[in-house]
Amino acid sequence: MDKLLIFGHQSPDTDAITSAISFSYLQNQLGKVTEPVALGEATDETQYALDYFSTKAPRVVDTVAEEAEEVMLVDHNEAQQSASDIDKVKVVAVVDHHRIANFQTADPVYYRAEPVGCTNTIILKLFKEHNVEVPKDIAGLMLSAIISDTLLLKSPTCTEEDEKAAKELADLAGVDLEKYGKELLKAGTNTSDKNADQ
Amino acid sequence: MDKLLIFGHQSPDTDAITSAISFSYLQNQLGKVTEPVALGEATDETQYALDYFSTKAPRVVDTVAEEAEEVMLVDHNEAQQSASDIDKVKVVAVVDHHRIANFQTADPVYYRAEPVGCTNTIILKLFKEHNVEVPKDIAGLMLSAIISDTLLLKSPTCTEEDEKAAKELADLAGVDLEKYGKELLKAGTNTSDKNADQ
Ligand SMILES: [Mn+2]
Ligand SMILES: [Mn+2]
Ligand SMILES: [Mn+2]
Ligand SMILES: [Mn+2]
Repeated sequence: MDKLLIFGHQSPDTDAITSAISFSYLQNQLGKVTEPVALGEATDETQYALDYFSTKAPRVVDTVAEEAEEVMLVDHNEAQQSASDIDKVKVVAVVDHHRIANFQTADPVYYRAEPVGCTNTIILKLFKEHNVEVPKDIAGLMLSAIISDTLLLKSPTCTEEDEKAAKELADLAGVDLEKYGKELLKAGTNTSDKNADQ
Repeated sequence: MDKLLIFGHQSPDTDAITSAISFSYLQNQLGKVTEPVALGEATDETQYALDYFSTKAPRVVDTVAEEAEEVMLVDHNEAQQSASDIDKVKVVAVVDHHRIANFQTADPVYYRAEPVGCTNTIILKLFKEHNVEVPKDIAGLMLSAIISDTLLLKSPTCTEEDEKAAKELADLAGVDLEKYGKELLKAGTNTSDKNADQ
């Protein structure tokens, strides 16, 4: 079986990078062979989370068609936010929390979108649906994404589900939600490309 | 709260009509106020299933914007297969098993697509995820859709999940899968618009 690549949007934020990591881990547990990659370098905020939870940043790629026939998208669906050669590969799955636009497939696809504050809130549900345990470090990365996307549960896009997921993931990760959340957001204050909506 | 309309594609097949009924039932159990409608008359096959499971055919409509601001789509997503004024309403949810094309939203949306043989196979998973019991007659209608879309589990689009769902729904509906399946498909042999792929 050829390896599938999984990636978030260009100019990746913490959700884009960590949802590739968490969804790839889940897919591999389910028997697929996948690798999380990123369409750009980690921001200071994301790097703080990666360091805190002892995880290497995903390999950065610009194009994907040379090394994979099939891909899975996380935290985005629009072609102009994706790999520059996205039209040359088959998208077999999408997990996202944004509007749907500029996206189409030739064949039936797995598409999971919910109007919540963070892609990792949806991915936590997928772990549960498949009865896969979330390892401690992955839980910490998923938590970091929710903190980032919802500005520590304070953004207007934050839902009850995000809040519940954040609390559960903080327990799994063994961190204090408020304390770690403030540290993480502080680590990101040097980056200029933060966007609570992405 | 305004009533939401839920409907399948134009020239509705058994899945289009019964997935509107089953998904509307589920949404109403979850506290929404929804009504299943249809973008065309039931075929002989669908009518056989509706009669067998003592269910009235959904009201037939051509347009939806005059009576609803928000809608949910089942068994389709492409605008040209939908209500003629679909661009005038907000699509808040989609459950489907087809390719995605000619579909876009202005806002985040609930979208649930899986590459299985029938929309009702996905809807059965949703009942389970929300811990809602499937009533006997609804189970029979959902089963009818799987039989119809997969030609009694024989089409190339049929997956293991469809097969498992069909067996479970036959038990819930209290019918013999093979016997009822043959009767249903026979009832539909007079219709000219059958399409295993829809
Ligand atoms: Mn996000
Ligand atoms: Mn993002
Ligand atoms: Mn169908
Ligand atoms: Mn159909």
